[in-house]
Amino acid sequence: MAKRGYHHGDLRRALLTAAVDAISEAGPAAVSLRELARRAGVSHAAPQHHFGDKAGLLTAVAREGFELLADDLAAGGDLLEVGVAYVRFAVGHPAHFQVMFAPALYHADDPGLAAARARARSALEAGLRTMPDRPADPAAAAIAAWSIVHGFATLWLAGTLPADLGPDPATAARRVIRLLFDAGPAARG
Amino acid sequence: MAKRGYHHGDLRRALLTAAVDAISEAGPAAVSLRELARRAGVSHAAPQHHFGDKAGLLTAVAREGFELLADDLAAGGDLLEVGVAYVRFAVGHPAHFQVMFAPALYHADDPGLAAARARARSALEAGLRTMPDRPADPAAAAIAAWSIVHGFATLWLAGTLPADLGPDPATAARRVIRLLFDAGPAARG
Repeated sequence: MAKRGYHHGDLRRALLTAAVDAISEAGPAAVSLRELARRAGVSHAAPQHHFGDKAGLLTAVAREGFELLADDLAAGGDLLEVGVAYVRFAVGHPAHFQVMFAPALYHADDPGLAAARARARSALEAGLRTMPDRPADPAAAAIAAWSIVHGFATLWLAGTLPADLGPDPATAARRVIRLLFDAGPAARG
Repeated sequence: MAKRGYHHGDLRRALLTAAVDAISEAGPAAVSLRELARRAGVSHAAPQHHFGDKAGLLTAVAREGFELLADDLAAGGDLLEVGVAYVRFAVGHPAHFQVMFAPALYHADDPGLAAARARARSALEAGLRTMPDRPADPAAAAIAAWSIVHGFATLWLAGTLPADLGPDPATAARRVIRLLFDAGPAARG
């Protein structure tokens, strides 16, 4: 097989993209470094050089996912819009989302990943601080907000929510998330 | 290999139990009827006779899951305790839970499964009707309640929630779910 020529960073990028495609099709369990090399049209040694092993590859996918999520949440605004951003992220990046919340598959203590995860958490907590009333139990409030948006996104991705919610996940999520305490101006509309 | 002798219903039960064990170990993608026969110590033809194909087997697992969930939710009481029952079910039956919310893997229009799923939904809605104030948007309220308990259960099972929530999922869930509208007496405590 003819191998493509890549600059170093481009090859890593191409391998990550191929991994995300493979996960989208068959789930993280089905991914192998060998199959990844075949997809990207590179030698068997290339994925091993860049990621070490399968857990290293999935660590890179999870880290990229938490970085994208943190960026999206930080741009969200009030708690309602941070929650909608979480759902949009999950629906837009289902393969990343699936890996991110299967920490048994990757090195969860990877420093870059931990930093991105902490940044995503901070963005969610900043959303909570936009609420008109400070919650009596802020730690539980953060987990309640995380739970409702994570559950909504997971149920949406599974195709198990009623069809009458309409086709747009953001619109549907807004209608649901506003019911968690007073999540945004819409809750009082 | 010596084949065990089973009465008809006992064999089906043994095959379902073996399937749940296999799913717990490696996820639904890894299950095969052939491997299932080996685990249960029966002929290759037995799983096919009882379930047809892999989707038929996972339909039976999902149906059993929704039946158990419906029973648990119906015994829950007010919305808070129905939500806690949902989390307890998920943590107690992670393999069933994983299959139930992967409807692409099974025959989601199976009449027995659809009936059990509708019964679970009714039990959740009965919990909602125990709330002191009727929600303005009952359909969204039902999805909000489902989302928060589903998200909490999923994050708990993934091991991604903070350790300071303590070891008992029901206690932790109660602290979180009470923040969704006025989920139960505890929210006013």
